[in-house]
Amino acid sequence: MSIEAKINDLGYTLPEAPAPAGSYVNYTRSGNLLFLAGGIPPVEDEYMGKVPTDTPVETAQEAARLITLNRLAVLKEAIGCLDKVKQIVTVNGFVNSAPDFYAHPAVINGCSDLLVDIFGDKGIHSRTAMGAAALPLNVSVEINMVVEVED
Amino acid sequence: MSIEAKINDLGYTLPEAPAPAGSYVNYTRSGNLLFLAGGIPPVEDEYMGKVPTDTPVETAQEAARLITLNRLAVLKEAIGCLDKVKQIVTVNGFVNSAPDFYAHPAVINGCSDLLVDIFGDKGIHSRTAMGAAALPLNVSVEINMVVEVED
Amino acid sequence: MSIEAKINDLGYTLPEAPAPAGSYVNYTRSGNLLFLAGGIPPVEDEYMGKVPTDTPVETAQEAARLITLNRLAVLKEAIGCLDKVKQIVTVNGFVNSAPDFYAHPAVINGCSDLLVDIFGDKGIHSRTAMGAAALPLNVSVEINMVVEVED
Repeated sequence: MSIEAKINDLGYTLPEAPAPAGSYVNYTRSGNLLFLAGGIPPVEDEYMGKVPTDTPVETAQEAARLITLNRLAVLKEAIGCLDKVKQIVTVNGFVNSAPDFYAHPAVINGCSDLLVDIFGDKGIHSRTAMGAAALPLNVSVEINMVVEVED
Repeated sequence: MSIEAKINDLGYTLPEAPAPAGSYVNYTRSGNLLFLAGGIPPVEDEYMGKVPTDTPVETAQEAARLITLNRLAVLKEAIGCLDKVKQIVTVNGFVNSAPDFYAHPAVINGCSDLLVDIFGDKGIHSRTAMGAAALPLNVSVEINMVVEVED
Repeated sequence: MSIEAKINDLGYTLPEAPAPAGSYVNYTRSGNLLFLAGGIPPVEDEYMGKVPTDTPVETAQEAARLITLNRLAVLKEAIGCLDKVKQIVTVNGFVNSAPDFYAHPAVINGCSDLLVDIFGDKGIHSRTAMGAAALPLNVSVEINMVVEVED
């Protein structure tokens, strides 16, 4: 099964790759490494504000899944076909964090689990999760990635 | 026109590469990738404190421009001549953020726009901007970069 | 002297590589670069909470040293022997920061100084230190690294 068929099989659809929120591009490539810009969820009320006070953990996990899908849309735009992904190398997850919230890993698992569901072993990555004081447009989660692709 | 002539043409001058603020160096190289340490603006009152309460957005953008110039000074020290830059690969921008400030992308555009003004297509990069709870020496902005250079 | 003998000579012992705190792995490799996941200190009272209000700077430096050792344990797991390290490329240090704490570089020096003590020139790295609003499990410090290794 192709990666994109697998995504559909899991009940998801790749969105349009979103426009960057500033003077930059969604990805750059250096050798076989793709550096994906920090992605955010749809700018809708439920995915905005601090976790867990404004956005419960479960909703923030859903935001992380939606970011993952829009990062994969960017990746497809970059390489044409997601089957060319060799390895999700590393993921950095920033949570718009209440000062006494400590379950950032649970939030970013929304991204990590989906990557493994989609890519299997190629989706297993190293990761850093942390709590930001605030995020662009007041979204609850922001995630960037480095991905290795086939030649 | 050389990149350094272009910088001067835009009305800027490369500063001295600043001393690191701790037990590290301004850059390392691995293959053709240069990893530039997090840079800060001149430690002067106007570039210190939280955005926008202590430092207005416009001043923080100027801080981002000054960081960009001192990162390019580091880059010149690393490779001898800025004409050897192949691509600004990725930029990470940290804003010393009031908890209800959400325009981090506007601040980091001060860096991104200048990189494109200087390097053209080679200056276009992927990017992550976020809000820090506090930054070293209480500066308003901190930026690191990965840059691909010619052999 | 081997790197591991050097570590012992400095009075330290490599710990067990800790289990990741979420759905990810401790490291991935792309070419000769190893991307180490964000590491945390032992989850013990003294290494938890905000710096400097809950954890004094000296204790946070010790946390940074303990993270460094557990990152090196991960690195050994990845490459079999620490003598194969070619260069510590870059270090990102996140401090669980009181909003008016500005000495993040001093905290992360606990990591940087130890890397240089252990690896000499190969331990000198570029670095970014910043203040997080909160960190996973409420630890005081989190550090990730990119490391270049021999073939």
